[in-house]
Amino acid sequence: MDQRNLTMLMDFYELTMANGFLESGLGEQIVYFDLFFRKVPDQAGYAIMAGVEQAVEYLKNLHFTPEDLAYLRGRKLFSEPFLQYLEQFSFSCDVWAIPEGTPVFAHEPLITVRGPAMQAQLLETMLLISINHQSLIATKAARIVRAAEGRPVMEFGSRRAQGYDGATLGARAAYIGGCCGTACASADRDYGVPALGTMAHSWVQLFPTELDAFRAYAKIYPDQCTLLVDTYNVLRSGVPNAITVFRELAAAGYRPKGIRIDSGDIAYLSKKARIMLDEAGFPDCGIVASNALDEYLIRDLLVQGAKINSFGVGERLITSRSEPVFGGVYKLVATERDGELIPKIKLSENVEKVTNPGFKTVWRLFDNQTGMAIADVLTLADEVIDESKPYVIFSPEHTYKRKKLTNFTAKKLQVQLFRAGRCVYQLPTLEEIRRYSQEQLATIWDEVKRFENPHAYYVDLSEPLWQLKQQMLDSYFGAASN
Amino acid sequence: MDQRNLTMLMDFYELTMANGFLESGLGEQIVYFDLFFRKVPDQAGYAIMAGVEQAVEYLKNLHFTPEDLAYLRGRKLFSEPFLQYLEQFSFSCDVWAIPEGTPVFAHEPLITVRGPAMQAQLLETMLLISINHQSLIATKAARIVRAAEGRPVMEFGSRRAQGYDGATLGARAAYIGGCCGTACASADRDYGVPALGTMAHSWVQLFPTELDAFRAYAKIYPDQCTLLVDTYNVLRSGVPNAITVFRELAAAGYRPKGIRIDSGDIAYLSKKARIMLDEAGFPDCGIVASNALDEYLIRDLLVQGAKINSFGVGERLITSRSEPVFGGVYKLVATERDGELIPKIKLSENVEKVTNPGFKTVWRLFDNQTGMAIADVLTLADEVIDESKPYVIFSPEHTYKRKKLTNFTAKKLQVQLFRAGRCVYQLPTLEEIRRYSQEQLATIWDEVKRFENPHAYYVDLSEPLWQLKQQMLDSYFGAASN
Repeated sequence: MDQRNLTMLMDFYELTMANGFLESGLGEQIVYFDLFFRKVPDQAGYAIMAGVEQAVEYLKNLHFTPEDLAYLRGRKLFSEPFLQYLEQFSFSCDVWAIPEGTPVFAHEPLITVRGPAMQAQLLETMLLISINHQSLIATKAARIVRAAEGRPVMEFGSRRAQGYDGATLGARAAYIGGCCGTACASADRDYGVPALGTMAHSWVQLFPTELDAFRAYAKIYPDQCTLLVDTYNVLRSGVPNAITVFRELAAAGYRPKGIRIDSGDIAYLSKKARIMLDEAGFPDCGIVASNALDEYLIRDLLVQGAKINSFGVGERLITSRSEPVFGGVYKLVATERDGELIPKIKLSENVEKVTNPGFKTVWRLFDNQTGMAIADVLTLADEVIDESKPYVIFSPEHTYKRKKLTNFTAKKLQVQLFRAGRCVYQLPTLEEIRRYSQEQLATIWDEVKRFENPHAYYVDLSEPLWQLKQQMLDSYFGAASN
Repeated sequence: MDQRNLTMLMDFYELTMANGFLESGLGEQIVYFDLFFRKVPDQAGYAIMAGVEQAVEYLKNLHFTPEDLAYLRGRKLFSEPFLQYLEQFSFSCDVWAIPEGTPVFAHEPLITVRGPAMQAQLLETMLLISINHQSLIATKAARIVRAAEGRPVMEFGSRRAQGYDGATLGARAAYIGGCCGTACASADRDYGVPALGTMAHSWVQLFPTELDAFRAYAKIYPDQCTLLVDTYNVLRSGVPNAITVFRELAAAGYRPKGIRIDSGDIAYLSKKARIMLDEAGFPDCGIVASNALDEYLIRDLLVQGAKINSFGVGERLITSRSEPVFGGVYKLVATERDGELIPKIKLSENVEKVTNPGFKTVWRLFDNQTGMAIADVLTLADEVIDESKPYVIFSPEHTYKRKKLTNFTAKKLQVQLFRAGRCVYQLPTLEEIRRYSQEQLATIWDEVKRFENPHAYYVDLSEPLWQLKQQMLDSYFGAASN
């Protein structure tokens, strides 16, 4: 669908390193990378995984064109064997990921890549952009949709997006996060995100009067008649003119849809407009509010009793304005020597930044009585959580905090996307992803989902993984203190 | 270069309106739209114009494919004549813009479009995304480069960009704003932004020891040897190991480049590392600092006496994290009837949001003695500022604030991009844009460029434009109070 050659969208150091791995005899060394994040934007309790489809398409299409090779050769940094390797590049990695739409938490391997160092290193930037961008927007959308308490939320932000994909893939991610549609036409054409739109102020300005403009619109779109009422004055002109046109539409047998307010004191204006519409006999005409909205303003509008039926949310969603960075990282967690796994750890003075070593699996444990998610557990890849026995989870920082689980279901979150370079994953449709996300989000307790001071969802390490990490920390810090 | 079909990247209402204009007999009505912003992000005093090249490419390639038409026909909202119009779409607008790299200010028409309503309306979203995104990043980059006080700043943020264009066009914009290069390989291949990069922590982790990793790197890249010293411990392991390898390189006749510090207390670490490098006989080895940097942190590091030779700036530049929205808007400012210009105004309770009506020109007035910019003036398009006579500028809000200028040069800022749909603009190279930006920025007083409470640069209206605006305001508000 996207015909661009994105293979070269990488940090230059991935190329210098890959070339270096080859030159150092480490090119075919099998490595494991985990893609994960350390905190959710907005101090939120959960994020929504998104961007997997674009990552899969990128991996399927990995190839270096003659132009790419000419560019690289011209840089005079890379060996001929490396350039030939790229020319004949044949992707052979295994890749696992948590499916799009899943609520995810800090330190979970959202994606795991296993393969030759020379390949796995090259994927870093594209996997990160794909997941970071769309997860950022899907997560923000989920918050905004939550604030709207069941009222539909449309994504309206294309014009303020950070680039063209920012608009189109942002609209896709917003839909995954729960928006009901977008203003972006190409997001509809390309991804099937329902696009809607009515008029801008320019429509109203181009006619001699506001009433003329409304009448002209109603004539052309009698079934889709939502009128923008704030070009001149909402209550003195916009709503009265809209009511005039709605009466004409109703007399002609049509059902007018409603009005949109894009500026001013929306709480006040919507309440007044609601009364005017009701008194005119249009209680089923909706009021759409747009403007610079986000989850906090929407919650505040509803607290004030604003009479709004749906929201159009622009720049603060499409850029996740309050926190525009999703901090996914891509870290080496293991290598193999003679088929044996050698875990790797990235140390840091900052405990939060120490990585979880080894090839791992993420499990989500559900309470069989409530159906709700209790905790996630990271295990070594060869561990199995036996649901038929009690399972003890414990806090990795405060290990005395323990909890014995019984009557639970354990579900592995990651699915395999690629096996030895071949895609083995059937991409779900966008509708399926969106529905799955709603279902999964319903299994997360409200305390985790609240905006302020959310309850920290448990992401625990299994006993074997915890032991491994401790051993590695002891051996490094023990060695350092000698 | 970009083979994507971006024609359909528009808000759906642009299509419903364009169809409506045609159906209402207004399709060929000549209209004028201005693209402008109302405030600079970060409460800054100036912005850097960017994104024109991508806007030009978009306009040159405007066309609706059979797939686009099939999609639109399937929506069952559009008339057959409109769909046929799109099928045979032939761009015929005039377009003017302020060239990329120019320092620009609030309320200035960055782009002006003149053409049939049905066409001009369709351009809204793509023009806005192009200018909003790249101007956002170029402006942020200019601030960060300014904070670095002459030290080179590299753009390192691809992985945290909001989508693929966010990375590549973001790198392009950062270069316009004064960065010296990028980590993004495809921004180099596609736009010629110099890409550089050395190693990640994974390089160091993949070798048995840090020293092995450094030696392997130095062997392959003896001329480009910048070593990442914070994988284990900067001062106890990273810098000593780097010095060992630098000595080996120097003994072999190479000149080692330096070290990179990516975490920890960079002020402290850089000072200590500087002493260690100097004492080891490497005073010309540079120290690169990366991490979550921005203009404030860089200024702060330098105030603390950090010994840093260059900066790598990531997520806070590529997303303009402190303020990730550039608020450009696209507003109707005039129409024509029988060849006569009819100015249009968009009213608002908020005085800042009232538009400047009419077809306009932006002038920048330079003091002939200092070469510095004194003020910008918006005039009606047919006005000429005669440099041979004194010219009086005045504040549009406080008209008693007047200043008589003599010995000045008046330069029109906009250039014509398209005439009757044909591109008449020779795109400058990226290097030319970057150099032009530096030159133009040097004509702006430091008081306008400072980070906190910058002096408000004058953007005045000519007497005729001011009179026109007042008349229109009086007639609207006069009429409303009847």
